Formats: sequence, C-alpha cells, structure tokens
Amino acid sequence: MLDYKIIEVKQSIFEDNDADANRLREELKAQNTVLINLMSAPGSGKTTTLCQTIARLKDSIRIGVMEADIDSDVDAATITEAGAPAIQIHTGGMCHLDADMTRQGLHELGTEDLDLVFLENVGNLVCPAEFDTGSSKNAMILSVPEGDDKPFKYPLMFSVCDVVLVNKCDTLPVFTEFSKERVVQRIHELNPNAKVIFVSAKTGQGFDEWTDWLRGLVEQHQ
Amino acid sequence: MLDYKIIEVKQSIFEDNDADANRLREELKAQNTVLINLMSAPGSGKTTTLCQTIARLKDSIRIGVMEADIDSDVDAATITEAGAPAIQIHTGGMCHLDADMTRQGLHELGTEDLDLVFLENVGNLVCPAEFDTGSSKNAMILSVPEGDDKPFKYPLMFSVCDVVLVNKCDTLPVFTEFSKERVVQRIHELNPNAKVIFVSAKTGQGFDEWTDWLRGLVEQHQ
Repeated sequence: MLDYKIIEVKQSIFEDNDADANRLREELKAQNTVLINLMSAPGSGKTTTLCQTIARLKDSIRIGVMEADIDSDVDAATITEAGAPAIQIHTGGMCHLDADMTRQGLHELGTEDLDLVFLENVGNLVCPAEFDTGSSKNAMILSVPEGDDKPFKYPLMFSVCDVVLVNKCDTLPVFTEFSKERVVQRIHELNPNAKVIFVSAKTGQGFDEWTDWLRGLVEQHQ
Repeated sequence: MLDYKIIEVKQSIFEDNDADANRLREELKAQNTVLINLMSAPGSGKTTTLCQTIARLKDSIRIGVMEADIDSDVDAATITEAGAPAIQIHTGGMCHLDADMTRQGLHELGTEDLDLVFLENVGNLVCPAEFDTGSSKNAMILSVPEGDDKPFKYPLMFSVCDVVLVNKCDTLPVFTEFSKERVVQRIHELNPNAKVIFVSAKTGQGFDEWTDWLRGLVEQHQ
C-alpha cells in the first residue's frame, strides 16, 4: 500500500518571514539538504515534472517531496507511486506557504536521509512569489498554453525565480502564437540571471539540462 | 488613438466585505446593470473570451470591461481594440478584488450607459474565490490544458461559480487525457447548479450558448 502523511499546517507565528526563511536556509545547509520551491499556475505540470525528475534521479539522489494543496491529496499519491517519499501539506485555504509552514512540512517529511527536497507550492502565480519559503532555490514552471505574455502580468514571480521551466513544449506546434525567443527576452528583462529551460514533462524533452542543474546543486551542498 | 484609463485601487476600508458586496449588488440592480465577475488561472483565455463575446454582442448590448491586473495594461488595450470601453485596474500586488475595489472600478468606468460589465479578475484560482465582488454572477474559465482534475484542487472556486466555461476545446485532440464527462461530473459534485459550457475562444465554438445565457441575464435585469 502506498503510504504518505497528510498534515495541516498552521499559519506562521513569526512576524518576520524573511528572517525566518534565512534561518531555515542555514539549517538546511548544515544538513546538506537542497530545498527547491517549485511554483506555477494551476495546471502547468508541476506534479508531472516532478515524476519525470524522480524517474531520472532517484537511483543516484535521495529525493523527497512536499505537496502543498488547499484540499486534495491526489498529488502526494502520484509522487509516492513515482517512487519518492512524499507528504501532503494542507494549507487550510491559504494561497501560499511561508518559511514556518515549510519547516513544519520538512519536520514531518524528515530530511536526514534526503539530498534533495521539492516543495510543490500552491498553484498560484501571485501570492507564493511574495513569501520566501527558506528554499535553496526557487523554480517555476510556465506552460506553453498559458502564453508568452505571462512575464508582463506576474512580474514578481519571474523576478524571484532562479530557473524557469517552459513546459508542454510538445504542444508548440498547436500554440503557434507562443514564441520561445519572446518569452526568453521577457523573462530576462525582469531577471537577467534566470536560467530558462524548454521542456516537456510528458515526453522528457529538455530534462537533461534540468537534471544536470539539480545534480550540480546537490554536489555543491555536499 | 485607443483610450483607456489605468486606476490604482486601494484596499477596502470595509471590514465586512460580504455586506458591502450585497450593497453593491443592490446598487447595480437599481441601475439595471449586470456585472459578471470572470475568474480563472493565469493563461486560461479570459481576455480572448471577452474579445469573442464583445464581437458577438456589441451591436445589441452595451458592454464595458474592467481589467484587473497586478501590473501591466496589455489587456485593457486589447479590449479597447475589440470595441468596448475598458479600464485597467491595478491592484498594487493584491491577489484578488473585493467589493469596494470593484466599486472604485465601476465608478471610473461609469455604468449609466452600460447593460453588461465584465470584471476580469486577477488570474488566480485561490484568493478571488474567497471575496464576493458584488457581481450579479460569477463565471470562471477552466482551459483544457490545465487538466480535468482542477475541481479537486480548487474546490471553492468551482463552488462559487454560476457558469464554468471550459475553454481551448479546439485542443482536445492534443490533450487526450482530458475527459469532458469527468470534468462535468467533478464540477457538479461540488456545485450541482453550475452551468458548464464547452467553448473555444479562438474558434468561437460553443459561444452561442454563452451569449444566449448573457442575453437572458441582461433581459431579466431590464
């Protein structure tokens, strides 16, 4: 039987989330655990991306996943099936996670035997961008069907991300109005250091670049 | 030259948003103006849906649009080109609109000569569901690429909507895992009264049912 916990996180008691996030980042560094905060709009393919990532890395890197959702636990079930330990975090209606909520999740997941932990944040391009979770790096997914104009509309999200995965690239022939050049340009106008990787979590296209980047991060932390 | 205003709305001074929303609904009723609060995830096609709707109705119904966005004004420009008066509401980073912010927008747009006003809410399936804007009806768009599991994950949004437009139906042959039957069943489990209409804002498919529903609403209010 697949086994994963569902936990209900409480809103932070800390007034200063930024200071708490920096504390959590130091704690994770001391434990040699890399935490990736994965954000996107609803339906961009966060869970499918994680499944594809787990399949490619699980034999060499010890991966755990925290799935944040307002209500359901379908994602934790999917990740557990993919072969990584997972917990489901219920936010109780909250639209984002802060550092203390993330710490509660990490405590339940247990990080001692993990090299790499993904936090799948609530599907939302607005609120999660405003709260530092204490992660080592921020990653976001923009899917091709959403359009190449999203950096104009959610500028903070694109500004805080270290990596942008442009997902569902297998559908580029259908969404002919999406321009790869334009989206890179718009992302780099907001955030010149953002790494942009074109992928398809369905076909696996582009995943070598993403998993190489993850491997590099894990090696730096050891 | 295309002309539209950009206004910066302030957070509500009213503690009780529900009471304020009911007041706004009564004010609009007295003016024979129908207000539709249109919500969706980022990139589901709200603006394209409005352009297609305006093209079909503008000769018989006087339509105005309030475009809410955190930052850009690309949507108000697009709507103005489509032939309806529009204003751009900047929320100053806020992830939703409440009734008082909506009232500020209506005041700037001017409703005396309008039968039907659309509020294009911030692209977000979480926070806008929690705030009654005072609209006559709530409508949401779920696009096919987002997947048919979204009712599980954003149950409040599906619960508060009178109409769900399932958009980008022209891409159903590509997103073969999306089931029309399953999505209707999942929506109706949460909200048995929700009207579900399958459309494509790109091709115009399904729009007769949507515009008939809008015409009926406007007639009821006159």
